[in-house]
Amino acid sequence: MSAPIIAIDAMGGDFGPHCIVPASIACLAEFPSLHLVLVGQASLIEELIARSPGVDRARLRVAHASEVIAMDERPAQALRSKPDASMRVALELVRAGRAQACVSAGNTGALMALSRYVLKTLPGIDRPAMMTAVPTRAGHCQLLDLGANVDCSAEHLYQFAVMGSVAAEAMGVVRPRIALLNVGTEDIKGNQQVKLAASLLQQAPGLNYSGFVEGDGLYRGEADVVVCDGFVGNILLKSSEGLAAMISARIEALFSSGPGARLVGALALPLLRRLRAELAPARHNGASFLGLQGIVVKSHGAAGEEGFKSAIRRALTEIEENLPQRLHGRLEDLLL
Amino acid sequence: MSAPIIAIDAMGGDFGPHCIVPASIACLAEFPSLHLVLVGQASLIEELIARSPGVDRARLRVAHASEVIAMDERPAQALRSKPDASMRVALELVRAGRAQACVSAGNTGALMALSRYVLKTLPGIDRPAMMTAVPTRAGHCQLLDLGANVDCSAEHLYQFAVMGSVAAEAMGVVRPRIALLNVGTEDIKGNQQVKLAASLLQQAPGLNYSGFVEGDGLYRGEADVVVCDGFVGNILLKSSEGLAAMISARIEALFSSGPGARLVGALALPLLRRLRAELAPARHNGASFLGLQGIVVKSHGAAGEEGFKSAIRRALTEIEENLPQRLHGRLEDLLL
Repeated sequence: MSAPIIAIDAMGGDFGPHCIVPASIACLAEFPSLHLVLVGQASLIEELIARSPGVDRARLRVAHASEVIAMDERPAQALRSKPDASMRVALELVRAGRAQACVSAGNTGALMALSRYVLKTLPGIDRPAMMTAVPTRAGHCQLLDLGANVDCSAEHLYQFAVMGSVAAEAMGVVRPRIALLNVGTEDIKGNQQVKLAASLLQQAPGLNYSGFVEGDGLYRGEADVVVCDGFVGNILLKSSEGLAAMISARIEALFSSGPGARLVGALALPLLRRLRAELAPARHNGASFLGLQGIVVKSHGAAGEEGFKSAIRRALTEIEENLPQRLHGRLEDLLL
Repeated sequence: MSAPIIAIDAMGGDFGPHCIVPASIACLAEFPSLHLVLVGQASLIEELIARSPGVDRARLRVAHASEVIAMDERPAQALRSKPDASMRVALELVRAGRAQACVSAGNTGALMALSRYVLKTLPGIDRPAMMTAVPTRAGHCQLLDLGANVDCSAEHLYQFAVMGSVAAEAMGVVRPRIALLNVGTEDIKGNQQVKLAASLLQQAPGLNYSGFVEGDGLYRGEADVVVCDGFVGNILLKSSEGLAAMISARIEALFSSGPGARLVGALALPLLRRLRAELAPARHNGASFLGLQGIVVKSHGAAGEEGFKSAIRRALTEIEENLPQRLHGRLEDLLL
């Protein structure tokens, strides 16, 4: 296999190139065969690269793009009016075969719209889905969709399940257990879409469908891939993020509420720091766009360097596993 | 006002009368004017009452009911075949005016079906909703619906918002901020039902509608009443419960992972215990059934004594505030 090349939208996210450039340079050091193309305002990017001594420029290229898509810009607007946006130029490098993946921390809706427009979906896929890893008591599960599709038919949920299963396999899970997120585990529970998707999955050959899972079962680790529509997935992920942040704040307050508590808090601090990083999955793990003719990984807009690095790692795994090809092959067998 | 009387389904929940009878007796001590009727297998209940010395039997009556609805029984089945179920007899005491509220920790679906059948809904209400208090950074918010209605039209969401607003006022919140749970805060975000519900709420006179709230905004305390369909509400509540339990387990593991950590853990234990109780809202707060011609509060099936006591307290507040009457008056003004 030739050396992996990843196109990085250097301008996206809340912190832009000031976070993304150092994260990219750190990944070059971590993966000796990795090549990166940083796309965006070239002068600024070069200036930031120059601050790090000893960068292997043979593996780090800069591609200028004169426009930036704002975090709150409407996707349709971004699609129409910014042909030279850093995000778009990065995606076009993937389409042209000059990179094997694109990573962006930019506007999620715009990234999805541009990805569909520039890369196109795989045959048989109506809508790409967004998937990320969520920590559970047993390790991790892959959750999809995360907001790309707010209204889903049973067939869409079925396609998500197939894609999630293949992607989890590519990430090393053997015979991943697929579950549909629902309000109960009995057959009679749920809305029409979920019940119908269940009957489609029961009939699918070679899929390890394990039934319904509830919100608490997800965190107990009852499934490897959890499937839901984008409305539910977005609410689940963001409310989990909000709850984890609230708990972190309460723990901090708890340990600073008096001299005795403060002493204990000082002793406990390193332990609690370790915990906090684990409690913000969305910020720390990239999200894969599945169902496209190319690899696109979204890093959280508020991700710091560590978060962006983990998005690059996720893209690298998908390149090594040739995920779009694997998806294409499996979809041909399984889609209705 | 005459003394409040609450009918208690003594047989429901995972622990049944062994938890519910002591919790009820504790509430009698806490509220000197409260009267309770314990409904269920009389001999067992009397035996459990006899274990507590000094119970004021003038305020504690036992009503025999020969049947019990199982936690996994189908609601339709329970409705048809168990006329003398403890849950049903308790609801009939409310209908007959011999109690002002019913509290049960039993089968949620059966309690909803029986409540609708025995008590009927308020005029203008298509479907009752389930609401509970969720802890936030700012205190609490009231979340509804929690699973009674898995498919909701915009009109249903609107009705829930009106009911939630009135209920929050009754619980002491001045001009409660009402928000619709959504995947973004901009007008263009969300599915059709949510967008249409937003335009209905914008036009509602006297409602303090504050727009969309996201999952993390809920925990940041951005609204006093958060409205969603029952599918989303159930997933949010149960996933929050699962995440909180996972974090509790991780904190425990963290503080027992070596001699140093164990020492810190021993010191931190009382602080962490305080936290854990706060992190399981569903188990610790009752859920109100809103939109019925009577007061029904559901206690979590896995609630312990403290949880059941808080459900009784919630019912008592609703009696004092005359919640169904207030709802009826407000609904006449506001419903389309």
